[in-house]
Amino acid sequence: MLLVHVTGQDQAPWAAAFAETLAPYPVVQHGDGHDPAEVEYIFAWKPVPDAFEGLGNLKAVLSMGAGVDALMQHPRLPAAPVVRFVADDLSQRMSDYVVAHVTMHQRLFTSFRSAQRAHRWDQIKPPLARDVTVGIMGMGELGQRAAQSLGPLGFALRGWSRSRKSIDGVTSFAEPDGFDAFLGGTDILVNLLPLTPDTAGILNRTTFGKLRRGVLPGGPVVINAARGKHQREADLVDALRDGTLGAASLDVFETEPLPADSPLWDIENCYITPHISAVSDIKSCVDYFTRIIQAHEGGGALPHVVDRARGY
Amino acid sequence: MLLVHVTGQDQAPWAAAFAETLAPYPVVQHGDGHDPAEVEYIFAWKPVPDAFEGLGNLKAVLSMGAGVDALMQHPRLPAAPVVRFVADDLSQRMSDYVVAHVTMHQRLFTSFRSAQRAHRWDQIKPPLARDVTVGIMGMGELGQRAAQSLGPLGFALRGWSRSRKSIDGVTSFAEPDGFDAFLGGTDILVNLLPLTPDTAGILNRTTFGKLRRGVLPGGPVVINAARGKHQREADLVDALRDGTLGAASLDVFETEPLPADSPLWDIENCYITPHISAVSDIKSCVDYFTRIIQAHEGGGALPHVVDRARGY
Ligand SMILES: NC(=O)c1ccc[n+]([C@@H]2O[C@H](COP(=O)([O-])OP(=O)(O)OC[C@H]3O[C@@H](n4cnc5c(N)ncnc54)[C@H](OP(=O)(O)O)[C@@H]3O)[C@@H](O)[C@H]2O)c1
Ligand SMILES: NC(=O)c1ccc[n+]([C@@H]2O[C@H](COP(=O)([O-])OP(=O)(O)OC[C@H]3O[C@@H](n4cnc5c(N)ncnc54)[C@H](OP(=O)(O)O)[C@@H]3O)[C@@H](O)[C@H]2O)c1
Repeated sequence: MLLVHVTGQDQAPWAAAFAETLAPYPVVQHGDGHDPAEVEYIFAWKPVPDAFEGLGNLKAVLSMGAGVDALMQHPRLPAAPVVRFVADDLSQRMSDYVVAHVTMHQRLFTSFRSAQRAHRWDQIKPPLARDVTVGIMGMGELGQRAAQSLGPLGFALRGWSRSRKSIDGVTSFAEPDGFDAFLGGTDILVNLLPLTPDTAGILNRTTFGKLRRGVLPGGPVVINAARGKHQREADLVDALRDGTLGAASLDVFETEPLPADSPLWDIENCYITPHISAVSDIKSCVDYFTRIIQAHEGGGALPHVVDRARGY
Repeated sequence: MLLVHVTGQDQAPWAAAFAETLAPYPVVQHGDGHDPAEVEYIFAWKPVPDAFEGLGNLKAVLSMGAGVDALMQHPRLPAAPVVRFVADDLSQRMSDYVVAHVTMHQRLFTSFRSAQRAHRWDQIKPPLARDVTVGIMGMGELGQRAAQSLGPLGFALRGWSRSRKSIDGVTSFAEPDGFDAFLGGTDILVNLLPLTPDTAGILNRTTFGKLRRGVLPGGPVVINAARGKHQREADLVDALRDGTLGAASLDVFETEPLPADSPLWDIENCYITPHISAVSDIKSCVDYFTRIIQAHEGGGALPHVVDRARGY
């Protein structure tokens, strides 16, 4: 039996979609009457504190989110494997977001927009893509896909991850040891890390101060499409105002929705989107977990299982 | 002898650069004392009315611009072949501009920016690149390069040109006959046509009204990086205000610099850059024409010669 447990958005369409794709395998919803001992899989999004109560025969926790940080912090998360959402259309959406914001900053959008507001014809010359280095923090599913899209556009690319990678056209840096060298050659910093104790708050004033200056006339740029708790918003506000950063594109925030009184809203060189860089599509998510349940019921291994020690 | 004749910007650096790369071949500047009968090549940018006076032994007119519309309208343009500037770094710059503006509109920049101004957390979902069709008018050097960059990002592509093309991944439309069908499936229209009597004013209200509606929630988008006289600015102002167009990115204008009192400056969904989408780089331009002069002096044919009947 699959138990669908979704909070913060409508649960019924998810249960209905799973019921259709999994039939005749039984699907129930959180709140329905059912015997918790019969639940083999739970599909979860922002589970309530007693979400896992009585699930003694659980085979896997299925995470609607690609990021499992919230789930990992659940005080009663059972020992069953946690499978996270990974899908081509999600990676494509994220790469679309990254390409749009990287190229906007490469083409000096902030400068031209401010000239426009002043009715000023100011012929500054944007750098060629090949003269701009994009540094991607997190070279997993999303980071590698972003690199695949940015490479053919001509950008110089570097990536930072826990383990060193060998990816064509991407200079690899690894571990805390490699972080400063990675930042020192980066003009546009893209964050696609998972949120873990090691990565929380990594986008802070010290990090911003280590980015390369000189290629982008306004200063280096930060793009955060991973998690709000990666960034120190007070540091971002200061850095955007004092020129440490030329601009920032932020899709995620320490508190979401971003409070109406956050100073970030009114900072001209801060580009805000409301956590939509890569939205899980209901159809592709249900198809993905349906395939996984069916394969696992047939004896197959679970893919994309979270490593609890690493936290992602 | 090469005569360098540049107006509207400093002529001396061009003459100095050519003198260095062409040496010992003689290079003179417009305004210097020299015998016009000795001039075999003239490198021209915005030539004055008597620029070609006495050049009886001209082998070619070398155009600093990739577009030769202004030169073609010169009342005393000699009969010698006109060679236009075509270079990898110019095409790359243009493609950088096109990708930045196409992806910005695909990701619904205008909507998110207006929500940001209102401090509003409004989770609309941008379409995937593959659900958006980019229609490129003009499939020459620049149009084909733009298509090469947009294709791997996943956009659906179509092109419109005089002659039909067969380019992988690009649906080809040709001639005035194919124009309406081309527009009818286009969400983002990119103009990279040369300016000729046939193409002047082509970006007008009738054209805008034929673009596809529905994929981009704000309405279809126009990007003009070719020539200002391709667009009817009064029509653009109306279309941007009444929702016929969701947005426009304009690099070129009927009058340049764009007059300070143009209404375009203050239209929120109009993105203005000051004719910098693809600036001719002095080094790459001088290297290009140096190679051409040397090859032609060695008996080779001239490349990229303008067809006077077609006007481009
Ligand atoms: N804003 C949105 O709409 C949205 C949508 C989807 C996902 N996300 C976020 O994006 C994150 C990344 O997703 P993904 O699918 O790409 O994850 P992933 O495949 O697990 O990749 C994570 C990458 O981060 C690296 N990493 C982890 N901890 C590190 C550390 N301490 N130091 C250096 N590198 C470290 C990993 O290194 P190794 O390769 O060495 O393991 C790996 O390369 C998710 O966790 C989620 O929070 C956001
Ligand atoms: N904003 C800037 O900074 C900037 C910089 C560089 C260039 N430009 C402009 O960009 C223009 C294009 O440059 P390019 O090097 O790509 O030119 P190109 O190689 O000559 O290509 C022109 C294309 O337009 C098509 N075309 C011409 N007249 C047409 C008509 N009446 N109907 C349909 N299609 C027509 C041609 O069709 P065929 O293939 O069938 O001949 C060709 O595909 C230049 O003329 C210049 O004005 C602007």
